[in-house]
Amino acid sequence: MLYCQLSSRFRIPYAVSLQPKTTWTSSNFSNEKSGHCTSVPRNANMEKLRSGYLFPEISRHELEHTQKCPHARLIRLGIGDTTEPIPEIITSAMAEHAHALSTVQGYRGYGAEQGNMALRRAIAETFYRDLGVKENEIFVSDGAQCDISRLQMLLGSNVSVAVQDPSFPAYIDSSVIVGQAGKFQEETGKYENIVYMKYGHDNNFFPDLSTTSRTDIIFFCSPNNPTGYAASRQQLKQLVEFAKANGSIIIYDSAYSTYISDESPRSIFEIPGAKEVAIEISSFSKFAGFTGVRLGWTVVPEDLKYSNGFPVMNDYDRIVCTCFNGASSVVQAGGLACLSKEGYRALSRVVDYYRGNAEIIVDTFASLGLNLKVYGGRNAPYVWVRFPGYSSWDIFSEILEKTHIVTVPGRGFGPGGEEYIRVSAFGHRECILEASRRLKNLYK
Amino acid sequence: MLYCQLSSRFRIPYAVSLQPKTTWTSSNFSNEKSGHCTSVPRNANMEKLRSGYLFPEISRHELEHTQKCPHARLIRLGIGDTTEPIPEIITSAMAEHAHALSTVQGYRGYGAEQGNMALRRAIAETFYRDLGVKENEIFVSDGAQCDISRLQMLLGSNVSVAVQDPSFPAYIDSSVIVGQAGKFQEETGKYENIVYMKYGHDNNFFPDLSTTSRTDIIFFCSPNNPTGYAASRQQLKQLVEFAKANGSIIIYDSAYSTYISDESPRSIFEIPGAKEVAIEISSFSKFAGFTGVRLGWTVVPEDLKYSNGFPVMNDYDRIVCTCFNGASSVVQAGGLACLSKEGYRALSRVVDYYRGNAEIIVDTFASLGLNLKVYGGRNAPYVWVRFPGYSSWDIFSEILEKTHIVTVPGRGFGPGGEEYIRVSAFGHRECILEASRRLKNLYK
Repeated sequence: MLYCQLSSRFRIPYAVSLQPKTTWTSSNFSNEKSGHCTSVPRNANMEKLRSGYLFPEISRHELEHTQKCPHARLIRLGIGDTTEPIPEIITSAMAEHAHALSTVQGYRGYGAEQGNMALRRAIAETFYRDLGVKENEIFVSDGAQCDISRLQMLLGSNVSVAVQDPSFPAYIDSSVIVGQAGKFQEETGKYENIVYMKYGHDNNFFPDLSTTSRTDIIFFCSPNNPTGYAASRQQLKQLVEFAKANGSIIIYDSAYSTYISDESPRSIFEIPGAKEVAIEISSFSKFAGFTGVRLGWTVVPEDLKYSNGFPVMNDYDRIVCTCFNGASSVVQAGGLACLSKEGYRALSRVVDYYRGNAEIIVDTFASLGLNLKVYGGRNAPYVWVRFPGYSSWDIFSEILEKTHIVTVPGRGFGPGGEEYIRVSAFGHRECILEASRRLKNLYK
Repeated sequence: MLYCQLSSRFRIPYAVSLQPKTTWTSSNFSNEKSGHCTSVPRNANMEKLRSGYLFPEISRHELEHTQKCPHARLIRLGIGDTTEPIPEIITSAMAEHAHALSTVQGYRGYGAEQGNMALRRAIAETFYRDLGVKENEIFVSDGAQCDISRLQMLLGSNVSVAVQDPSFPAYIDSSVIVGQAGKFQEETGKYENIVYMKYGHDNNFFPDLSTTSRTDIIFFCSPNNPTGYAASRQQLKQLVEFAKANGSIIIYDSAYSTYISDESPRSIFEIPGAKEVAIEISSFSKFAGFTGVRLGWTVVPEDLKYSNGFPVMNDYDRIVCTCFNGASSVVQAGGLACLSKEGYRALSRVVDYYRGNAEIIVDTFASLGLNLKVYGGRNAPYVWVRFPGYSSWDIFSEILEKTHIVTVPGRGFGPGGEEYIRVSAFGHRECILEASRRLKNLYK
């Protein structure tokens, strides 16, 4: 009997085990003042965050469902968590580095906060060959999500921000935390000071820049999470021109670039002039199965300057040295092995495997008929399915209840995600096939 | 011939290789506007940071000295970087975890952002037994310095801050970055909005709280970096009472607690009532030689509340989930092994080794006669030496020039560090002995 036991592979985030959903906002908070209270004011920015972070919310729904249907064989295509083993050449490199730390010859203490030079060089050669990105422009980190926060700390509260709508929630949440966002407006589902660049099937998954207000910062993710769409060269040229004309900085998230299977640019730095207007964040998480191992990087080009001419890179270097102490040396050894010829080849096979999953998911939804539209999956491990006229939370709930498959409601990524669900292609093949069967049965 | 080749073991921070010392402040900045400049304003807080971060500054001096004396056998007792191998039981646990990641059974993706429960439990049992600290109050991280920044992000710009003077520079620098510090005043060497709690040999290394202004946050480090002094139970009681009376939150840095050899408290939570007024940050770096491996933790007690009664822990949990994605699973496996019976015993021997170094350093300076006074070293891996009437940078330079030993000028830790140098006890024994000989020769 096929049993898709993924439970132990997935985190059960804090919201489930630690606090009730209602503790975040002051309006929900009971204001119980038992015991000593300090006189320290709660950070007003924290107070502006909306209830739970999306993924813990999903987990809460999962948990409720599991309690209701304890014998259901849940298939989790929600949180985009990798499931396939890391090629041995990479884990061996980590093990070897760890072992060396127990020897007099092999022991090393602090590394450079910016990362080991060999790894920075390998990243430059692997991902930016012929693009003129230098190794000293690459800052190795413990992951893209952490880098988003560090970039927010760098920029401070006095900048304006635009995000794609829908988008990965960490851009907005970190923006709220540092005080760029303003108040949340229930009626629109948006923060007042954030510019939401709407995009979707009706505008070729690229925002209409002619009607987009100027902001200091533009968060842009391609291949996109959640839509799975990779921006074309022409679109990215427009974006770079727009940023240049407006004096904006693009923070380009390329965490899924290794999933690109066509001619779409893999880096913003493929676009001429981008080094004067863009920072790129990226990650080993989805490319190398390093979601729990933790490794990423950020490129801050020397040519990128503030309005007073001061190089952004110098301030970012200072942030990295003050607020971070470098990624783990053990993990960096693994990262270096990822970028060896053999390591990279082995990882490409894993990426192909997930791509195969994505294809099955795309085909499944496409075969269902109904009125739904299927996007993504070709250049990213996410499939973005539109159910015209339906609420995304309703679709999420229906699929969960009737097929025991966890997806993510598009609305969780912003107002622009309404009518959609995101389906992750990470998973064992047999689970993906079983999910396919269940969906076909449900809607046949 | 004894050759203390430590070079390859120590990082050469960015300042040396990447940018000149002068790039940080706008006053030093040439304002060269060649090429495109964005219209994004430089974060005014970043502009307030003083020139280089202390340790890169030290490295710059080192480099200059090495260029001047290329054949000198440099001994680095400056940056407090561990030098002794990690016990094999710990590195094996990391290697084993890494290997498991290459198997279908052993692969794991994302872990909980707050850390693996087994490790949180082991930290609670090892460091907080009988102190009532619960595992869900412990947030595992990639190190104390990173946690300081995350705590600053949590608190925001609208709180007032006190630091010990002298103190570890990251408290002040992170405070400047989030906008709590105000302007730097050249004449006093202090930021206008930060309260500097002076302490030293004349007040038993504990600030006079009767003359200390109330602040929201009090950074307090014990055993102290740089002075090597561990606060007594009586002193910490005073501190907790002071915080309680003022409605303040203490951020207590106990990164060196395993070096305590007497009855001094190892945690602020040994003091009754501390759970209502304190957060504790700590680290595996100096205890387990994890400076490059990266692991730490922060305790945020459930009982700690903002002025409106809202639990600080809930907001910190949100910060950890939004701005961090958990410490590396490979490293956490190592952390768990550190806290096993055998691992802990092996680590105690390494700590004893560094304690032996500290003793040699204390004895060396004490034997020199002169007018100098020697502090610390008994409960911490740092020796704090006072040269009454001398500038700490002058002493630093004299020792570097005449003995090729790198120390840290006390002034680098704040105005209260003038007349002192900090000498690190991390190092191979033969280097410590050689340093001792050179110092004795110099001042004989």
